[in-house]
Amino acid sequence: MKERPLILVTNDDGITAPGIRALIEVMNEIGDVFVVAPDSPQSGMGHAITVDNVLHCNSITVDDGPQIEYSCSGTPADCVKMAVNEILNRKPDLCVSGINHGSNSSINVIYSGTMSAAVEAGIEGVPAIGFSLLDFKWHADFTAAKKIVKQIVLSALQNKMPEDTVLNVNIPNLPEDQIRGIKVCRQANGNWKETFDKRTSPFGKEYYWLSGEFVNKDRGEDTDLWALENGYVSMVPVQFDMTAHHMIQKLNTWDL
Amino acid sequence: MKERPLILVTNDDGITAPGIRALIEVMNEIGDVFVVAPDSPQSGMGHAITVDNVLHCNSITVDDGPQIEYSCSGTPADCVKMAVNEILNRKPDLCVSGINHGSNSSINVIYSGTMSAAVEAGIEGVPAIGFSLLDFKWHADFTAAKKIVKQIVLSALQNKMPEDTVLNVNIPNLPEDQIRGIKVCRQANGNWKETFDKRTSPFGKEYYWLSGEFVNKDRGEDTDLWALENGYVSMVPVQFDMTAHHMIQKLNTWDL
Repeated sequence: MKERPLILVTNDDGITAPGIRALIEVMNEIGDVFVVAPDSPQSGMGHAITVDNVLHCNSITVDDGPQIEYSCSGTPADCVKMAVNEILNRKPDLCVSGINHGSNSSINVIYSGTMSAAVEAGIEGVPAIGFSLLDFKWHADFTAAKKIVKQIVLSALQNKMPEDTVLNVNIPNLPEDQIRGIKVCRQANGNWKETFDKRTSPFGKEYYWLSGEFVNKDRGEDTDLWALENGYVSMVPVQFDMTAHHMIQKLNTWDL
Repeated sequence: MKERPLILVTNDDGITAPGIRALIEVMNEIGDVFVVAPDSPQSGMGHAITVDNVLHCNSITVDDGPQIEYSCSGTPADCVKMAVNEILNRKPDLCVSGINHGSNSSINVIYSGTMSAAVEAGIEGVPAIGFSLLDFKWHADFTAAKKIVKQIVLSALQNKMPEDTVLNVNIPNLPEDQIRGIKVCRQANGNWKETFDKRTSPFGKEYYWLSGEFVNKDRGEDTDLWALENGYVSMVPVQFDMTAHHMIQKLNTWDL
């Protein structure tokens, strides 16, 4: 690639989150950066899009970096649609989403606004990578993550990104010298065992908070959870053809 | 199955939508029915879950049928989590979602609240089917759809549903005698080409409506779009392992 690449940056924690500011800082070293990100936190939004409401999108300046930034009222997937089809003059060379404050490994890929933005870019034909750091805190330490992000983005730009596939990168919350490397993995088979915390409002009305704990049902050593538990960065290729191709033959035995 | 099956019914158009009322009517003929559905339309919500807000869930009566019904403030995925982990005493034998007013074929499976409810049930270990009729209208004619739903649900209960797979069923908007049968398909490779309709509010502020048209890039005759265009009901097995397994080897050639 001779020219500087055009890089679209988005996230789900909102445009002022430290994670996206760290990502923008690194991307400014690599290419021309456009930021189109949610104006408020959108965690857990999955692949939601705004079909029953209007969208607002405003040019803003958050810091003195060279990037151009837009703050959007929609979901992460809306931001990518808006960027690719309305704001940018040409298709970006890469879309990066994150750095998410918290893990998006295993089944969380499906609930994650960060990863849905990357998947939406993939659907639109833009190579895309979602990055997450295993630290929920607002003031998480992104020092090691920034180096890993740079390494992976440079590698993705050099190699041709696989078509119809985006990358889900999770980074363990460790100092740089304790990270053992980057492992290509599959999504671990796990799920949330939900509990609902039932409370009563000051007006006597019952309400609930969704809560729960994650259960890893997968003992494989080729999974993202295994990699992260053993000090590796996990990199899972993610597709958006959701067909269970191996089940087609079985379903054809049903008498329909 | 000796006892009547316990069937969880949900949707994304809201608990009063004619599509879910038609689905409840059919399910009452087959099993004991619990409805846990959104109290308002949730189209396009994808796999969103409510993590930053509380949930309300109230027992309601909508008609004089034997089913038990709860109206929930959350997304379709929230409704399924709430039903399986808080409301029901035992795991349902089946979860059905819909009947959606409008298609959820091809890539729409990823934006669809209807299908995300089915996928969420699958993640929780409950066999699940999402049903959609290719008619967006509130007063769509569900006559033919109800017969097809009954046939597929009875077949799913008789046959063992494949594990880690849910079904995405789309029904063409045709009279019963013009529907040519049910085809097991793969998800067609297509996407939305978005346009943004830019307008100005009465207060002079610019805003956008997301719009666009669907582009089918797939000429295969084994896809859901082909089936629907040719008068068949499409039935796609859907998985929630999003790993692009075939790309793992290629990514291992990157120098990371």
